[in-house]
Amino acid sequence: MQKLSAEEQMALIKENTAEIISEAELMDKLKRSVAENKPLRCKLGIDPSAPDLHLGHAVVLHKLKQFQDLGHLVVLIIGDFTGRIGDPTGRSETRKQLSEEEVQANARTYQEQIFHILDRDKTELVFNSQWLAPLTFSDIIKLASTYTVARMMEREDFARRYRENLPISIHEFFYPLMQGYDSVAIRADIEFGATEQKFNLLMGRHLQREYGQEPQVALTMPILVGLDGEQKMSKSLGNYIGITEPPGEIYGKVMSIADEIMGEYFRLATRLPAQEVETILRDLQSGRLHPRDAKMRLAREIVTIYHGAAAAREAEEQFRQVFQRGEIPEDIPAFTFKAPSGIVYLLATTGLASSNSDARRLIQQGGVRVNGEKIESAELKFKHPAELVLQVGKRKYARITLV
Amino acid sequence: MQKLSAEEQMALIKENTAEIISEAELMDKLKRSVAENKPLRCKLGIDPSAPDLHLGHAVVLHKLKQFQDLGHLVVLIIGDFTGRIGDPTGRSETRKQLSEEEVQANARTYQEQIFHILDRDKTELVFNSQWLAPLTFSDIIKLASTYTVARMMEREDFARRYRENLPISIHEFFYPLMQGYDSVAIRADIEFGATEQKFNLLMGRHLQREYGQEPQVALTMPILVGLDGEQKMSKSLGNYIGITEPPGEIYGKVMSIADEIMGEYFRLATRLPAQEVETILRDLQSGRLHPRDAKMRLAREIVTIYHGAAAAREAEEQFRQVFQRGEIPEDIPAFTFKAPSGIVYLLATTGLASSNSDARRLIQQGGVRVNGEKIESAELKFKHPAELVLQVGKRKYARITLV
Repeated sequence: MQKLSAEEQMALIKENTAEIISEAELMDKLKRSVAENKPLRCKLGIDPSAPDLHLGHAVVLHKLKQFQDLGHLVVLIIGDFTGRIGDPTGRSETRKQLSEEEVQANARTYQEQIFHILDRDKTELVFNSQWLAPLTFSDIIKLASTYTVARMMEREDFARRYRENLPISIHEFFYPLMQGYDSVAIRADIEFGATEQKFNLLMGRHLQREYGQEPQVALTMPILVGLDGEQKMSKSLGNYIGITEPPGEIYGKVMSIADEIMGEYFRLATRLPAQEVETILRDLQSGRLHPRDAKMRLAREIVTIYHGAAAAREAEEQFRQVFQRGEIPEDIPAFTFKAPSGIVYLLATTGLASSNSDARRLIQQGGVRVNGEKIESAELKFKHPAELVLQVGKRKYARITLV
Repeated sequence: MQKLSAEEQMALIKENTAEIISEAELMDKLKRSVAENKPLRCKLGIDPSAPDLHLGHAVVLHKLKQFQDLGHLVVLIIGDFTGRIGDPTGRSETRKQLSEEEVQANARTYQEQIFHILDRDKTELVFNSQWLAPLTFSDIIKLASTYTVARMMEREDFARRYRENLPISIHEFFYPLMQGYDSVAIRADIEFGATEQKFNLLMGRHLQREYGQEPQVALTMPILVGLDGEQKMSKSLGNYIGITEPPGEIYGKVMSIADEIMGEYFRLATRLPAQEVETILRDLQSGRLHPRDAKMRLAREIVTIYHGAAAAREAEEQFRQVFQRGEIPEDIPAFTFKAPSGIVYLLATTGLASSNSDARRLIQQGGVRVNGEKIESAELKFKHPAELVLQVGKRKYARITLV
């Protein structure tokens, strides 16, 4: 790709971005990068305790890919030091202590996924134990001396817990300091994160200043809403699309989102140029484009990123078969379960039957179909992963994902 | 000295003590010490940035000496680690960064003074860098995880600064944690301090519990009021008696205190048994003992601690010569200056003259005497250290200490 001017780069960078602190500083860095033909160092910190990526994580990764396309370098920092220390109080789920082997395994898992999006050749992967582990008590005192208690307490979760008289252990103050120090160690030019990470990104700016470096630019991306259309996409809420899920599953899940959040998904979860997205959304609004067709385009685009165009076409074909040819309505309720399940349990839990015994009766009466086929036995069990459409009588449907 | 029972020891220990947390725990430790014939480990932490001791510091040292007399061991911890780190923000006077050499020199100065009171053979001297310097980041996170921000903010100076929106740097939270960790490292049985150090002493208890040790007893002593009778004795306020000051100076300074604080000085600044002190105070109250005689006894006792009985007698004799034989009133105003001074300056500053020119005129008129001798020249300068009695005319006096 030919090098763009700083101004051209800025125009692309600003697309879909939530906030850039500050644009003027970013412009300076871009200009210098062009003049000196030197890529900017784009930092992304990674939590090694949660290696399963979903489309929510991908939002920032797409923006990073854009920077790579513009010629810049991504520096991925695996937070192995934090992972290996864990949270001595054992209170924090995201800070559980990991063994060296777990950290390495998670880092590998992470890489397998992340390079579906990022360009491996323009990515540097580093572990922060490299510079955090050798710090002496004296270094740590210096690090801690750069920040005040009052400013730390402005961080939203600390402020809330202090207000509600929930305990905050003193060591928790170190996690943002460590993350910020990572920026110093790798001499980051820009750090990326979701809007909720703004505090940490600004900490990196602060610490770079304290350690005599030019402060990094903080670039935040909007948070992607989950399949429920209400809460942020997260694994624990079950409202997510994992980037390693099979093509059919990703396709089906995308088809289940509400029409209202399609625009957000087009902008944040695909690689489509901003102009093309705007055309699609305009056509949708004017009625020139049917919402179902738009959503199928969205599903195809997303599957393509993670499984390629052929798999996307196949997933689409399969979806047509099950839903369109079988004339199953599109907007049927969807459920996700994390384990293999029996048919009786599924019918009762999804509300297609009013109870376990009602489910058994319905099956005996021949009124239950799974993916169009009539069920004979109440003992039927489904292995996971699987995608099922349950049908009771003519009108009651549920779509089940067993992950 | 013959070993006393735990109960007998407790009776002596409680004399003059401000607070013991807790008496029941101390009794257990004393009983075990007697039963196993094993001395208790009595911790005192020492700030290596302020090696000059005064009678205010001696209050705790006298109590420690009592423990030594009862057969116990004093562990003096030189806080060299804190001294060598200093305060990276440079805001704290008591945390200025010291070189290795300064720390060592201060530690020597400290020892020269402290063994005027403590028994060298029952004293262990350690430097806390020995266990603090090797701590890794991971150890430090563990240490910090044992305490919450809310509890740390209960410490009086933090609470006040937070309330008043004055900055508290995060590293400041580490000083009490380090001091507390010292108790873990030396397996302290009791920690000693002034009442204002209670928070730090309790931190030691807390950390020992967290690290699986029996918590130390916290024993606090009252704070000695300074020569002004109002504020606590401190070097910066200039209202102190240094334990290395010459005998005559100590004697004279003691004689200058107000009658009302004599009792406090007898209890906290001498080695007299509690019973004897009570007799003196009773006699004072009943009028059987003249306040001047009581104060001379006090001065003699204090000088004896630091310079021996002979020096004390000599100081007393000198005092009598100057003040009693010369019929100089006792209660003349006293001033301390830190540098050599000229006679004009002293007259004007102490109010014996209304201005510099008034001072010169008084000298020319032959109305000024120093230590009983008439002054001829307004250019007279005094070297320090020195003790002077200035006299103008028949009735105006001032006692000057040049330190």
